[in-house]
Amino acid sequence: MTQTPLIADSLPRAVTWQDGNLYLLDQTRLPQETLIEKQETVEQVFEAIRMLKVRGAPAIGVAGAYGLCVALRDKTALPTDAFMAELEKHAAYLDSARPTAVNLSWALQRMRQRAEAALTSGEAETAVRLYDILVREAVSIHEEDKGLCRGMGENGAPLITEGMGILTHCNAGSLATSELGTATAPLYVAHSRGVSFRVYADETRPLLQGARLTAWELQQAGIDVTLITDNMAAHMMAEGLVDMVIVGTDRVAANGDVANKIGTLGVAILARHFGIPFYVACPSSTIDMAMESGKGIPIEERDAAEVTRFGARPTAPDGIQVRNPAFDVTPHDLVTGLITEKGIITAPYDRTLKTLFGGKDD
Amino acid sequence: MTQTPLIADSLPRAVTWQDGNLYLLDQTRLPQETLIEKQETVEQVFEAIRMLKVRGAPAIGVAGAYGLCVALRDKTALPTDAFMAELEKHAAYLDSARPTAVNLSWALQRMRQRAEAALTSGEAETAVRLYDILVREAVSIHEEDKGLCRGMGENGAPLITEGMGILTHCNAGSLATSELGTATAPLYVAHSRGVSFRVYADETRPLLQGARLTAWELQQAGIDVTLITDNMAAHMMAEGLVDMVIVGTDRVAANGDVANKIGTLGVAILARHFGIPFYVACPSSTIDMAMESGKGIPIEERDAAEVTRFGARPTAPDGIQVRNPAFDVTPHDLVTGLITEKGIITAPYDRTLKTLFGGKDD
Repeated sequence: MTQTPLIADSLPRAVTWQDGNLYLLDQTRLPQETLIEKQETVEQVFEAIRMLKVRGAPAIGVAGAYGLCVALRDKTALPTDAFMAELEKHAAYLDSARPTAVNLSWALQRMRQRAEAALTSGEAETAVRLYDILVREAVSIHEEDKGLCRGMGENGAPLITEGMGILTHCNAGSLATSELGTATAPLYVAHSRGVSFRVYADETRPLLQGARLTAWELQQAGIDVTLITDNMAAHMMAEGLVDMVIVGTDRVAANGDVANKIGTLGVAILARHFGIPFYVACPSSTIDMAMESGKGIPIEERDAAEVTRFGARPTAPDGIQVRNPAFDVTPHDLVTGLITEKGIITAPYDRTLKTLFGGKDD
Repeated sequence: MTQTPLIADSLPRAVTWQDGNLYLLDQTRLPQETLIEKQETVEQVFEAIRMLKVRGAPAIGVAGAYGLCVALRDKTALPTDAFMAELEKHAAYLDSARPTAVNLSWALQRMRQRAEAALTSGEAETAVRLYDILVREAVSIHEEDKGLCRGMGENGAPLITEGMGILTHCNAGSLATSELGTATAPLYVAHSRGVSFRVYADETRPLLQGARLTAWELQQAGIDVTLITDNMAAHMMAEGLVDMVIVGTDRVAANGDVANKIGTLGVAILARHFGIPFYVACPSSTIDMAMESGKGIPIEERDAAEVTRFGARPTAPDGIQVRNPAFDVTPHDLVTGLITEKGIITAPYDRTLKTLFGGKDD
């Protein structure tokens, strides 16, 4: 569909499948240590997912699919029914590593269905053949996610012009996906085309994905990135340093409301105040047409210790009350455009999103 | 002028002068440790101000005035001209500890002028006598600041009504001043009158004064306080939990522009977006009528390590570029009112502030 940007080769890879082996970058050690761990067993993959060594919805799905291959690679001497029983058992096991991760369930279900279809159709008559088909399916899931990222990159890159300042929040980057990231995809593509621009990365409290991951991966790619605390965004905008905001999203409602990492709403309001375009990069799979508006999106409230401690160090008084919503919802009227693999979608979202999914534009 | 609220006795003291010695509460160790350090030398006071052991504009002014006494207490054997030269030297030295802090300059200038007046008038003919006059002047500055806090508390308290949610940023509290704080003074006075309300304290990265200090001192005082990360403020407002914002300030320009801790501008813009009143508590001494607008206020850029580390723990990649402005400027049109010891000042600030200082309202 689109040409692979050259920059892809230089990006850190969250998930790699090579010569029948799965390698995962341990993101819990970033940015201090770049440790790529060969996954010897399915239990190791399970732990990597559970401990957030691999994170980001698309990357977890890809890791789960390959993880299933790791589980089954020494089962190819089994009869097909015993092989399928092993597949069921290990798919359920891997799925339980992050029970709320929709992409993990989705990828494992797709692997299961591919194997069943191959058996039913007679395409595979041995476990060896089933295993080969499963590996190819995992690679397809991986490649399709790369394609989505590249599509967002190609569509978003023309927004980025020479000398621009771009602010991003959290990590919707290469590390969370298969290759170019979502919010970062337009940055990587523009950079590969020789466009010079500056990026401001919000550190993104409480878990600092911006400081630990976004700042690191953009720095690795040779992009001019400056780390700021979340509360400096307004000042950067007031100084005229920010010409555009691009963030990722966990879910977009049918009316264009955007759920994303806590703090995104604030950035969107600041952008509106300063007349700065606010873009959301999202694969069309993230748009939930069954969700009427952002009001219906459940907001996960996480452990208070994420706010009151920093690593092992307490930073707030004992017994203090805390709020810790992990996400917020940005109303669609603050969103300049949704950068998807199919193009940039703009308001009125209730109509344009329906059209995107082939519904009637009434 | 106003009755001392009973609550004052239970509040922590940032600065204490007792028996010719200066004691500072090391606020960098709060809330884990309550360490009060006797200041043996002016260099120790300089470091305490520079390292934010004592912080908050009024407290810095008071500490600076006492710090000058610490510098001069072993100079009383000098002739008065040599004593005055020492005073000039150490005042300039202390003043350089925090360039944005107008109260520090103001307090040191006042000490200088008091000594000069005492010499000129013949009130002091020896360094011993000059030193005594300087100590009394520092005590006056301290007592006057207590009175200012009480005045802001009395004037601001009626804004706080039963069941209200109030958001504050950084620490413009008891710890930042001589007693009731600035932004916190209305809270303490309303609380002492039995009004029930909720406070949301922004943690205030990078130095977490909100988490470490505001949350701690309000909790100590028995006020219902909830800690949030800075980037959660918009979500709290969207949830309808915030009815008013009160913050402090380091300097207000003649047109009403407000310099305060980084992140204040963002909160002001969010408040405007949600139609929430945004008040700034400021003693009239913080209003700098010689500063035409906020554009002229210098913004201190602090060490990158405050952003890239948390305590000793690195949280960002090595060599990452960082911005770390300590303050931002909130334009006067976002300010609902200035809560001063003389009353609540509202727009048009260029006229109302002139009137406040007895100038012609032209």
